This record gives sequence, structure tokens and C-alpha cells, in this order.
Amino acid sequence: MGRWEPGARERLVVAAVDLFTEQGYDATTVAQIAERAGVTKSTFFRHFPDKRELLVAGQETLSRLLAEGIAEAPADASPLEAVAAGLRRASSTMGPANREFAPRLKAAIAASGELQERDALKSVSLAAAMTTALVARGVPDPIAALAGELGVLAFKRGYQEWSEGERDGDDDLAGYALAALDDLRAASAALG
Amino acid sequence: MGRWEPGARERLVVAAVDLFTEQGYDATTVAQIAERAGVTKSTFFRHFPDKRELLVAGQETLSRLLAEGIAEAPADASPLEAVAAGLRRASSTMGPANREFAPRLKAAIAASGELQERDALKSVSLAAAMTTALVARGVPDPIAALAGELGVLAFKRGYQEWSEGERDGDDDLAGYALAALDDLRAASAALG
Repeated sequence: MGRWEPGARERLVVAAVDLFTEQGYDATTVAQIAERAGVTKSTFFRHFPDKRELLVAGQETLSRLLAEGIAEAPADASPLEAVAAGLRRASSTMGPANREFAPRLKAAIAASGELQERDALKSVSLAAAMTTALVARGVPDPIAALAGELGVLAFKRGYQEWSEGERDGDDDLAGYALAALDDLRAASAALG
Repeated sequence: MGRWEPGARERLVVAAVDLFTEQGYDATTVAQIAERAGVTKSTFFRHFPDKRELLVAGQETLSRLLAEGIAEAPADASPLEAVAAGLRRASSTMGPANREFAPRLKAAIAASGELQERDALKSVSLAAAMTTALVARGVPDPIAALAGELGVLAFKRGYQEWSEGERDGDDDLAGYALAALDDLRAASAALG
């Protein structure tokens, strides 16, 4: 990502989602996405391997931030306290632009079986990243696996509510994700 | 599925997994799968829409059985007792042939990103089926969602251990899945 193309990556994502919404995922080509974003096809391929990966482009970053937050939680943090630290870290990358964009992204995924599959794999990958980070803290299986699943559920539920919520200024994703995690913690206790 | 082609569906699945293992998922065509199974291409398409769907062909049946088991659990069953009833029902369809086949299926999925995506969507679908069945019993959200996730984790872990376990006769998948659910229930209590 050179300095000569500021924001190309973000413009490509927005252009793709607009085109997916307008004419469908299958009918949209990489050339059309690049043209709409005002970049060349080779710029597209410098950022993404194909049109499908474009919508889950944040997956690796999210996985890394979730894992870092968990790894750096205090040594005496419980598994869910560590997960909460991961959620705070990952949420910090999501700003007002992501929030504005969320409903269109959701609609594009809902309209394409192929994107639903890719999105499902993203969830599985995020859960695996959190589980691995918890195991590295010494959390035993299956507690680590379950806490990782709760983390993904909390992130998805928080993101969903955040993207639908009142956009009245300074409330950020972290608050929504942590509230969802609290609900899930209570549900977990009720099940046990 | 007419009487004139007994076992065609099963033969197609086995032929596909063998070919995926031998030469890769991408390089395998529907024509090759049909030939190996000793059926025509049109027989293939009577059973499956494409080669990808073939490996998750049991998804709808599993979803239905999980939901039926949950729906028919006693009225006073707890959410996880209802999930256990669903796991028992779904496990009943998996016999020694499925067990023998599991390692090859796992290897084929592990070798293909496309199959991993489809497999991830299968997990999401099974969790949604259980969650919906629990909500229909009056289990509130997010307890229903969490119990559905535990059900999928238990089914996947039980299946994994069953497929790797000693094949000394009469032990069936249900025992493995229910043991995994018990472990997850304990983990859930520890998290809460």
C-alpha cells in the first residue's frame, strides 16, 4: 500500500458492496469494482486476491487484535475477562465509517450464498484465534473453546446492535460487545 | 432416489472424497465422480446440485433431526437436556460406515479452502436450527443461542472423538456427543 493511493483499499470495499447490492455478487467483476473505485485492476490485486476475500479483509487484523488483547490481559484475569480485553482491542479499529457501512455489508452477504460461506469461515477463524490465545494463557480445554465461542457471539451481537443503534455521537463498538459478553456470561451460568 | 439405483448417493459421496484426496478438489469434475461411482452425470445431478454440496449433503437431515429431538423433549427438560435429546436423535443416523469414512472426509475438507467454507456454514446452520427449536420451546435469548452453540460444539467434538476412537464394536456416536456436552456444561458453569 504505497502513499500514492490513499484509501484505495477502503474505496475498493465500498465500491464492491455497492456493486454487489446493485447487480448481485455473481454478476460483479473485479474490473467493475476497480473502475468504480477509480483504481486499476492491478491495484485491486495488490490489496485482495479476489472479490470474495474483499468482504472479509479485516479477518486477519481482527484475529490478531483479539489474540493480542487476550495475551496482554493481566495474569489473574479470568478467561472471560481476557476475552473482554480482546474485544476491547478489536473494537478499537471500528469507527463511524464502519458503522455507516455495516447495513450495506450485511445486505450484500445476505444476498449471496458464497459470501455467507466465507462469512461463516470468518466466525470459525475468529473463534479459533481466541481459543488459541486462551490456551496459551493456560486455560484448559474445553473452557478455552467455549470462551472463544462466547467471544465471537459477543462480537457479532455487539456489532449487530451497534450498527443498528442510534448514531448519537460517541458510543463505540466496545460498549456493545462487552454488554453482549455480559449477557452471554449470565446465560452461561444459567445453563451450567 | 428410485429403486433402480440402490446406494447411488452413498457411492457418489465415497467416490468424490476418494477423488478429492487423490487429485484435489479443484481438479475433480462431476463427470469423474459419476464415473467412479458407476452412475451417469444426470444421476449425480438428481442427488446433488454440485460437487461442493455433496460433502455437506447430510446438513438438512441433521438440522431436522436436531430440531425434532429438541421439540419432542419433555416439557420440563432444561435447555441442555433438550439439546441432548437432539444430539441423540441426530446421532442415530450415523453408523459404522460413517465412522470408517470420517477420516477421509476430514482430510478432503482440510485440503480445500472452498470445502472449509462450506463446512463452516454447515456449523452455523446446525447452530441456527437448534437455537430456533429452543426458542420455540420458550427458551429466552441469549440462552437459546448459547445452548445451540454448545450443541454444535458437542456434536463436532463427539464426532471427532468417535471417528478417532477404538472401533471395538457397539459404541455409537451418541455416547461421545453426550459426553462432550457434559464437558461443555461443566465448562459453562466454570465460566459463569
